[in-house]
Amino acid sequence: MNAPNSIAHLLPDVRQRPVPEAFLEALAARFGPEQLSTALAVREQHGRDESPFDVPPPTAVVFAQSTQDVADTVRLASEYEVPVIPYGAGSSLEGHLLAVQGGISLDVSRMNQVLSIDADDLTVTVQPGISRKTLNEAVKHTGLFFPIDPGADASIGGMCSTRASGTNAVRYGTMRENVLALQVVTPSGEVIRTGTRAKKSSAGYDLTRLYVGSEGTLGVITEVTLRLYPLPEAISAAICSFPSVEAAVRTVIQTIQLGVPIARVELIDAGTVACLNRYSKLTLREEPLLLMEFHGTPASVEEQAQTVQGIAREFGGQDFEWAVTPEERTRLWSARHNALFAGLQSRPGARPISTDTCVPISRLADCILETIAEVEASGIPYFLVGHVGDGNFHVGFLIDPNVPQERVLAEDLNHKLVARTLRMGGTCSGEHGVGLHKMGFLLEETGTSAVEVMRSIKRALDPKNIMNPGKIFSL
Amino acid sequence: MNAPNSIAHLLPDVRQRPVPEAFLEALAARFGPEQLSTALAVREQHGRDESPFDVPPPTAVVFAQSTQDVADTVRLASEYEVPVIPYGAGSSLEGHLLAVQGGISLDVSRMNQVLSIDADDLTVTVQPGISRKTLNEAVKHTGLFFPIDPGADASIGGMCSTRASGTNAVRYGTMRENVLALQVVTPSGEVIRTGTRAKKSSAGYDLTRLYVGSEGTLGVITEVTLRLYPLPEAISAAICSFPSVEAAVRTVIQTIQLGVPIARVELIDAGTVACLNRYSKLTLREEPLLLMEFHGTPASVEEQAQTVQGIAREFGGQDFEWAVTPEERTRLWSARHNALFAGLQSRPGARPISTDTCVPISRLADCILETIAEVEASGIPYFLVGHVGDGNFHVGFLIDPNVPQERVLAEDLNHKLVARTLRMGGTCSGEHGVGLHKMGFLLEETGTSAVEVMRSIKRALDPKNIMNPGKIFSL
Repeated sequence: MNAPNSIAHLLPDVRQRPVPEAFLEALAARFGPEQLSTALAVREQHGRDESPFDVPPPTAVVFAQSTQDVADTVRLASEYEVPVIPYGAGSSLEGHLLAVQGGISLDVSRMNQVLSIDADDLTVTVQPGISRKTLNEAVKHTGLFFPIDPGADASIGGMCSTRASGTNAVRYGTMRENVLALQVVTPSGEVIRTGTRAKKSSAGYDLTRLYVGSEGTLGVITEVTLRLYPLPEAISAAICSFPSVEAAVRTVIQTIQLGVPIARVELIDAGTVACLNRYSKLTLREEPLLLMEFHGTPASVEEQAQTVQGIAREFGGQDFEWAVTPEERTRLWSARHNALFAGLQSRPGARPISTDTCVPISRLADCILETIAEVEASGIPYFLVGHVGDGNFHVGFLIDPNVPQERVLAEDLNHKLVARTLRMGGTCSGEHGVGLHKMGFLLEETGTSAVEVMRSIKRALDPKNIMNPGKIFSL
Repeated sequence: MNAPNSIAHLLPDVRQRPVPEAFLEALAARFGPEQLSTALAVREQHGRDESPFDVPPPTAVVFAQSTQDVADTVRLASEYEVPVIPYGAGSSLEGHLLAVQGGISLDVSRMNQVLSIDADDLTVTVQPGISRKTLNEAVKHTGLFFPIDPGADASIGGMCSTRASGTNAVRYGTMRENVLALQVVTPSGEVIRTGTRAKKSSAGYDLTRLYVGSEGTLGVITEVTLRLYPLPEAISAAICSFPSVEAAVRTVIQTIQLGVPIARVELIDAGTVACLNRYSKLTLREEPLLLMEFHGTPASVEEQAQTVQGIAREFGGQDFEWAVTPEERTRLWSARHNALFAGLQSRPGARPISTDTCVPISRLADCILETIAEVEASGIPYFLVGHVGDGNFHVGFLIDPNVPQERVLAEDLNHKLVARTLRMGGTCSGEHGVGLHKMGFLLEETGTSAVEVMRSIKRALDPKNIMNPGKIFSL
């Protein structure tokens, strides 16, 4: 490893704005100690996420219990020009929650109610603080489910804000496709609705999709109407081991190109399988594998599985091993979702830096193979998993936080992967969002003029720059 | 019929802005007679669409042949503060193309090339002037197709601009779901890209979805990257007649609630079936009918059809009649798409006013039945068709343009239908867009504050208000 030993150029631009005492007093008068905390532990908990950055915590945390609470908080913040950082479950990965310009954290996790289940319309309306698992428990009795599964038990509001997706997106789409409407508190404290419960609409600008993925920079999401889906009559999960990553990826590419409506198809590389075996007490063959799920009628699930098994065999894949019971399936998917923790266990004390690129499916094998070669050559420990049906994969670099050169090297590899992805027609972020970490990558991807359009929108809707300032792009 | 005999309150607010001679001279110097026309016939052709409004035509028409042509035109228009109205196929329905504030029409129909077919990625990149039928001819040899079918052979750029959908949307989504990326000329004449060819992305604000549905008010679309789908192995179309509209609609509701992946399901009411029989020389049973299409493997198509036939029987539906060959299917779908013309033939000299509401599926039967009762009581001739799988249906009022009371009555019925739709949680526009016709409805639907957010975006991105001004909302 041969790299500069300063990470200064990788750190966010921290410029804390003043938080007037009068503002804190006004908050205290409005909320009282049950809903307002300035305790260091609470502030620190709200001042970090799963990103690799250390930034001073927010000055205070407001625990909103209603849209009115949110509107009142934002109105006060606007009056005193204090930054407001919406907070759901704290599971974001790119520094979205960090108070780089100071201000307060607005925690909506107590706004966690299901407001209405409209099973006949396959929709549900929830508050933003509800987690996706809680939501699925709440709608289970209707025979419906909400498919988007980023792994972490994220809040629905947070999933909207980062335009999250995850393992089921190959079939069901991302938050982009599955949010029907939002209630949003604007930066001036007004409450708006961005849509209806109709499945489609051509009524004006698509404000729903503007707020989805805006990472808290344009307002606070206070209600979300989501699409639900009938629980499939049949679900089967299968594992298939391959002689190489390339063989696995080529199987996926052909599956997608044939139009097989596979519900999940995840790649796990051999080293990561070994970590998972140790972490989750599994006995998977330590080769690259695909973890798949098929949804449909029994006949259609059977047909899909046969098609994919046929493709896999052409590329040297093993016979599918089936996880038939819900318990077996849950165990496998939990193991997949624990890849991060399994990776971390393999290098105690390490801190992860995750990539999030997404390429057109035909370039996926090239992109992954070139990346693996480069990462192997670097000597940095890593794990590799991917929502490969979408062309999206994550390399998790496991760096020693006390060795700056490792951080620099990992970020350099990340940057090279992004450059490769852009050459291949892809994006720097498949699902994690930009936050602080990818502001440079976004500029490389879209160019200055497109980011300038985003900036114009931000300035128009948030002229005082109070909503999660310093994220996505600089102003 | 008992209504005021003035339609003044229904007409658009026409305030033509000056078009300086120097601007026209600069255009002429840049483009020459091959690409610039001030002939009255050309201007009149570009100054109307399928809407019921009569507005003076634009001052000139520029025929762009490249992104550079578009950028140069917009830059000149910005310099002289002249309105620019992008024009594709002229098939929009709500007054989108009308020069209510004067200015020029920017015709992109010569920008009709396929720029790249990336069959392995299931994507295609085209210029905006290509029509959907031409696009489908161009990609046919790859075994892929572009599913969005609004009936008219609209331009792809126009379909982006109105967030179009149509008969296939119940399975494949709308333009919202199927545009991956755009190239756009901004109101200052800059060229930006809004996305990549990756299937999903969390990289910054979703500019693609902001421009999709913005009806030419934020810029000119100059390239479009679309998703394609494998042509289904099997396609079957079926017709099923029902004893009542309610029986047909309840069959659809249950089909959707069961999660059957039906590709198309259109309702045609009995009177409209009679019109279609006469217009398209068909011999359909003159009862309410569903026209359906199933896509998939042969086994899955069979399974879907059996499920829906079973549901239909419960509601008194007849045995399905099948259209098996591509020619038979085309004949049926052409007939469906000719409903407007068939309706017009039934009342020679009539002009249509179309509604476009979309409700959550559980309310569809109530919404249609209440509407039919109200329309029948009014005595205005009408036809009724619907993309009922999405909750979207159209009543076409066939009014005598020489009888103002009919226009007033039809608009009053339209307004009552919108009010009913909003009470039921739906939207005033499923797929046609707002244009001039629904500006009031949009305000009723979203409220002033949400429209104010749209206005802020418009003002920020188009400070001189040159891009298709006076549409969607007033400033």
